[in-house]
Amino acid sequence: MLTSKTPVGILGATGIVGQRFIQLLEMHPWFEVAWLAASERSAGLPCSKAATWRLKTPIPERVAQMTVSPADPATAPKIIFAALDSKVAQELEPKFAEAGCAVISNSSAFRMQADVPLVIPEVNPTHLTLIDKQAWRKKSGGFLVTNSNCSAMGLVLALAPLQQKFGIEKVFVVTMQAVSGAGYPGVASLDILGNVIPFISNEEEKLEIEPRKMLGSVNGTGAVLADLIVSAQCNRVAVEDGHTESVSVKLKKPASKEEIIEAWTSFRGLAQEKRLPSAPDQPIFYDPTPDRPQPRLDVERGAGMSTSIGRLRPCPLLDWKFTLLSHNTVRGAAGAALLNAELLYAQGYLGKHE
Amino acid sequence: MLTSKTPVGILGATGIVGQRFIQLLEMHPWFEVAWLAASERSAGLPCSKAATWRLKTPIPERVAQMTVSPADPATAPKIIFAALDSKVAQELEPKFAEAGCAVISNSSAFRMQADVPLVIPEVNPTHLTLIDKQAWRKKSGGFLVTNSNCSAMGLVLALAPLQQKFGIEKVFVVTMQAVSGAGYPGVASLDILGNVIPFISNEEEKLEIEPRKMLGSVNGTGAVLADLIVSAQCNRVAVEDGHTESVSVKLKKPASKEEIIEAWTSFRGLAQEKRLPSAPDQPIFYDPTPDRPQPRLDVERGAGMSTSIGRLRPCPLLDWKFTLLSHNTVRGAAGAALLNAELLYAQGYLGKHE
Amino acid sequence: MLTSKTPVGILGATGIVGQRFIQLLEMHPWFEVAWLAASERSAGLPCSKAATWRLKTPIPERVAQMTVSPADPATAPKIIFAALDSKVAQELEPKFAEAGCAVISNSSAFRMQADVPLVIPEVNPTHLTLIDKQAWRKKSGGFLVTNSNCSAMGLVLALAPLQQKFGIEKVFVVTMQAVSGAGYPGVASLDILGNVIPFISNEEEKLEIEPRKMLGSVNGTGAVLADLIVSAQCNRVAVEDGHTESVSVKLKKPASKEEIIEAWTSFRGLAQEKRLPSAPDQPIFYDPTPDRPQPRLDVERGAGMSTSIGRLRPCPLLDWKFTLLSHNTVRGAAGAALLNAELLYAQGYLGKHE
Amino acid sequence: MLTSKTPVGILGATGIVGQRFIQLLEMHPWFEVAWLAASERSAGLPCSKAATWRLKTPIPERVAQMTVSPADPATAPKIIFAALDSKVAQELEPKFAEAGCAVISNSSAFRMQADVPLVIPEVNPTHLTLIDKQAWRKKSGGFLVTNSNCSAMGLVLALAPLQQKFGIEKVFVVTMQAVSGAGYPGVASLDILGNVIPFISNEEEKLEIEPRKMLGSVNGTGAVLADLIVSAQCNRVAVEDGHTESVSVKLKKPASKEEIIEAWTSFRGLAQEKRLPSAPDQPIFYDPTPDRPQPRLDVERGAGMSTSIGRLRPCPLLDWKFTLLSHNTVRGAAGAALLNAELLYAQGYLGKHE
Repeated sequence: MLTSKTPVGILGATGIVGQRFIQLLEMHPWFEVAWLAASERSAGLPCSKAATWRLKTPIPERVAQMTVSPADPATAPKIIFAALDSKVAQELEPKFAEAGCAVISNSSAFRMQADVPLVIPEVNPTHLTLIDKQAWRKKSGGFLVTNSNCSAMGLVLALAPLQQKFGIEKVFVVTMQAVSGAGYPGVASLDILGNVIPFISNEEEKLEIEPRKMLGSVNGTGAVLADLIVSAQCNRVAVEDGHTESVSVKLKKPASKEEIIEAWTSFRGLAQEKRLPSAPDQPIFYDPTPDRPQPRLDVERGAGMSTSIGRLRPCPLLDWKFTLLSHNTVRGAAGAALLNAELLYAQGYLGKHE
Repeated sequence: MLTSKTPVGILGATGIVGQRFIQLLEMHPWFEVAWLAASERSAGLPCSKAATWRLKTPIPERVAQMTVSPADPATAPKIIFAALDSKVAQELEPKFAEAGCAVISNSSAFRMQADVPLVIPEVNPTHLTLIDKQAWRKKSGGFLVTNSNCSAMGLVLALAPLQQKFGIEKVFVVTMQAVSGAGYPGVASLDILGNVIPFISNEEEKLEIEPRKMLGSVNGTGAVLADLIVSAQCNRVAVEDGHTESVSVKLKKPASKEEIIEAWTSFRGLAQEKRLPSAPDQPIFYDPTPDRPQPRLDVERGAGMSTSIGRLRPCPLLDWKFTLLSHNTVRGAAGAALLNAELLYAQGYLGKHE
Repeated sequence: MLTSKTPVGILGATGIVGQRFIQLLEMHPWFEVAWLAASERSAGLPCSKAATWRLKTPIPERVAQMTVSPADPATAPKIIFAALDSKVAQELEPKFAEAGCAVISNSSAFRMQADVPLVIPEVNPTHLTLIDKQAWRKKSGGFLVTNSNCSAMGLVLALAPLQQKFGIEKVFVVTMQAVSGAGYPGVASLDILGNVIPFISNEEEKLEIEPRKMLGSVNGTGAVLADLIVSAQCNRVAVEDGHTESVSVKLKKPASKEEIIEAWTSFRGLAQEKRLPSAPDQPIFYDPTPDRPQPRLDVERGAGMSTSIGRLRPCPLLDWKFTLLSHNTVRGAAGAALLNAELLYAQGYLGKHE
Repeated sequence: MLTSKTPVGILGATGIVGQRFIQLLEMHPWFEVAWLAASERSAGLPCSKAATWRLKTPIPERVAQMTVSPADPATAPKIIFAALDSKVAQELEPKFAEAGCAVISNSSAFRMQADVPLVIPEVNPTHLTLIDKQAWRKKSGGFLVTNSNCSAMGLVLALAPLQQKFGIEKVFVVTMQAVSGAGYPGVASLDILGNVIPFISNEEEKLEIEPRKMLGSVNGTGAVLADLIVSAQCNRVAVEDGHTESVSVKLKKPASKEEIIEAWTSFRGLAQEKRLPSAPDQPIFYDPTPDRPQPRLDVERGAGMSTSIGRLRPCPLLDWKFTLLSHNTVRGAAGAALLNAELLYAQGYLGKHE
């Protein structure tokens, strides 16, 4: 490595989220991809061969020529981004944490474990203190930090300012999710062209529980879920990137339309305060146009890291209805993990740097 | 007219719903298209020229050659199917009713007027008694009967059996609506390819009020709205035909999953009892497969007249969540009006026939 | 088997073409599905479990409950429809022919073998005489008959009347092919949503050679290729069913626009003469509308068995340009094989029947 | 105007191509939008109201607030980009040229007029000398320069290096064109979802003649068409941006695959030599991957100004077949006009600048 950047590795580098990690890390001011691992049949191949590159920007030349390593912590750098299937993550992530790695994971495997932070830097950065409860941390210095499911991410960003100012009791959410969320090859074209699929395996379960951890607190024992109820229904639609969500919320105390919009547009967190490189200037963008947000037009706001919201209006059942949009493979996956890594770096969890 | 079928006319014959009327009336056992009217610029043209035919079955040869008439009741038969824009309907429908026509309308203009029936033959056929309160009826024998908005139709069919058996308090519904619902040319391709549009003008308002009329009652004064609350959010998706809806309901008394499914699958109404030609054998089809219903696979059930339901499961906020699918231009528009006409015919409202 | 219909089997019953076989054979007047085989992991399962049913009409109840058999000729009926991948066909089809079965195949494995008929009943029914040159036929009575690649089918139907009347020298063809042609799961949605893929493996090779066999002749030794050149370019587009082809031809003798259209619309073959159950009344439909044929509107013509043609106009390089459309999984696959089977049956190749 | 940039106007600023002009001119080093005109009903409105903005980057704030002017040269700056319908262009463009404006037009109205340059800076920059033959130029200093049709642009860029090195005799081209080429609202979603439309009005005529002017020469009288034949077939597909073309060419002298690829990849023109701000470093990008170029992945190459080519292989009828892709609203419209303006500016046609 000729640069002074911190080397990082990617577990699961060849999938759609792995490709986003590669794309987002190219040109990163602090980190540099130094190691890639994927499934056994990819090991030994150059990354350009192992991955079916599906992003609109070409694979960076340097990474294209890197050889895919076996998923073995012995050869890996100490900072690992993980984009693994849940089953594989269940087995591999502890191995890397055990071996002293900072594992920054997009997988669902350990998200709800009490001593594992499920973090959004703008929302619950203090949950990082859970790291010190992890057995790995004590033993080898390694640890595990996770970000949420792609459909929970935009929702929690939209809810956090309301939770902070007014409290939240109940949330209805119906998602219309992009096909990139299913990876590659993922959804068959015969299944989705001109169609809606009203089912995504385990998605509603995650969307009903993960927000409660992120909007909850941390006590001596671990994470404490927030006292609110989420009812979720998840659908797949013929959109490439960007999950759209129709939401209705019941607040704990009354708020006017103006107060809610003000809560959203003024919302900033530690990510902005510390000027983390991947933090959007404005985490939440409210668009007063009647027919927005739309994935085709709005998904790239804040380089894919902002949540777009529109159509705030009264709900005859709860208090307020609105529509949100969040980029599922950037803010909802690779970008989320990267922002978590930047927060960890800024907080000193990733070793010395000056 | 050489046949013994009853002649009918179509107001707004060249639009997408008008074309469905033509398609569904071709081969109808009781009715025969004898008159077509559309906007002024179409009058005098053969129907094949006036309409940009967008259906998969070709325009029937006989109708293709019929000349489009001006929208004047003087030349029209006594039974009129109306597929007009709301503004045009506001002006034209009363003219035809005044002139003694039975106007069977798909427009929203008069749906909520207290003495106008908003009818689904399986759900509230007794609302037809409102006809006799109409001034037109008293004066010329003419009258006006309406069917609901396309997104309300599938919802009300799904709710009716639950309302009858368990009572309904609250409904949360998010729609994913097909582009054919916007007519032709309707939604621009640049707006919907790979996109979701979270807004359909006036749709949520209709979807929150129309079910209350159809599930309500009739008293001496007119229609009485049902005492339930609907909260609706409407989205447009890149689907050709078929509105998918994610629904959650709170019932007045408890019901098990089995009882609800039984209520749906055993549901029959006057349309089935009287064996109306366009009535589906089974108005509601429950599919236990985890990822159904889907527009591409299920929209044609019951020749587009059945509502497909799936994914019944508990809702953490209300009682039960489910997904429904209904064909928006058949059951939700032309087929609905045709079924209403058949009921009127069977009940003797359309004059003598034997 | 309680009916008097002839029992048939399907090899590769669970794929997209296999499903079309099941759909088309349901209600067939002569044949009845009596046996289904698929890959090893499907054997023993009920067909409803083994197949991910992707057609718009539901799987027939009787077939849904049939158990998938191993691909062993010992248990199979004597008439076998084969919808296998080429590699599997290479091994299995000879086994079944050897065992005395009439193998009516949609696979490419043996299409170009000199003693194997590559047949369209309207075009080259006399090629069936090749059957008697097959070693299998002599040994066990079994034989193998094939139909063409899905993109060659519509092209050959369009060319055959021109070849018969005017002769053909050169053909340019560029295809825009539907995703169902790639089977299921086949094309990934991330690859085709809003996209064109300018490559289909081995497709251009087939499209350049197969028409020459079908438009060629048979002599004492076997099939003789027609003396014409085809240049093909194949693209995949976001269409569910129906291959569209932009074609230009050079004829051997001059023909006017009217003569060509007359050659197409008057074209009939043995399939029509013998009134085979799956033969379309009109194999070629010419539409003078300037913007047709279109897959969404025209693919179902003749129950998916007709080729639609439009836009005949002079070509500045060759003689005439036109656009054609053909249903790739009906006329271009399962329907083609079924029509071949019907011809074989009518010609007495499938044993006695009265 | 507080900057030292040269003020420019846009005629037809609210359409899809007008929006691309606005987007591409924002941040331009030489030009600055100072005036916008559109149809009469837009005049007087702020641009943000007059235009239905359809691009993925938001409308620049400064332009959003500019008032749309009437299309009157009296108020306009001396450099005008025109993105008008052909009929409107026929009337308005001469008015502006007459009034002394440099009219840089994307319209087809005057492209084939003998004294009007139809220019691609990399291909035929010497055609700009035609300007001095224009009556407007002599009278008021004004003039008219055009760029080609969107489907001709990519083709001519691909052909130019072959024409220069080997000569071209015959070209066969079939296009698969994006919906943005039809403007907004343009193609109805019901027409293109899951469909191909094999017809674009007047497109084939333009694609058969315009390349002959651009690849031709200029003599004392005006433009002289190149001696080659193009046969074109044009189709619309469900793609947002990017025209894909299947091409076959006959060269005047033989060339190997390597020589052709070398001709393409080494191709540079005056645009690159003069380092015009919108010129791509590499006008033609050859991709050896078997399934490229694809609109979804490759359309943004060279910021939408490069032509992507792939699949070069022998043609059994002519010499070589290949597939090309070009961004239809950037390189094929607004970007083409902008590059022409930059060339005019660099050549001193747009007045003094230092």
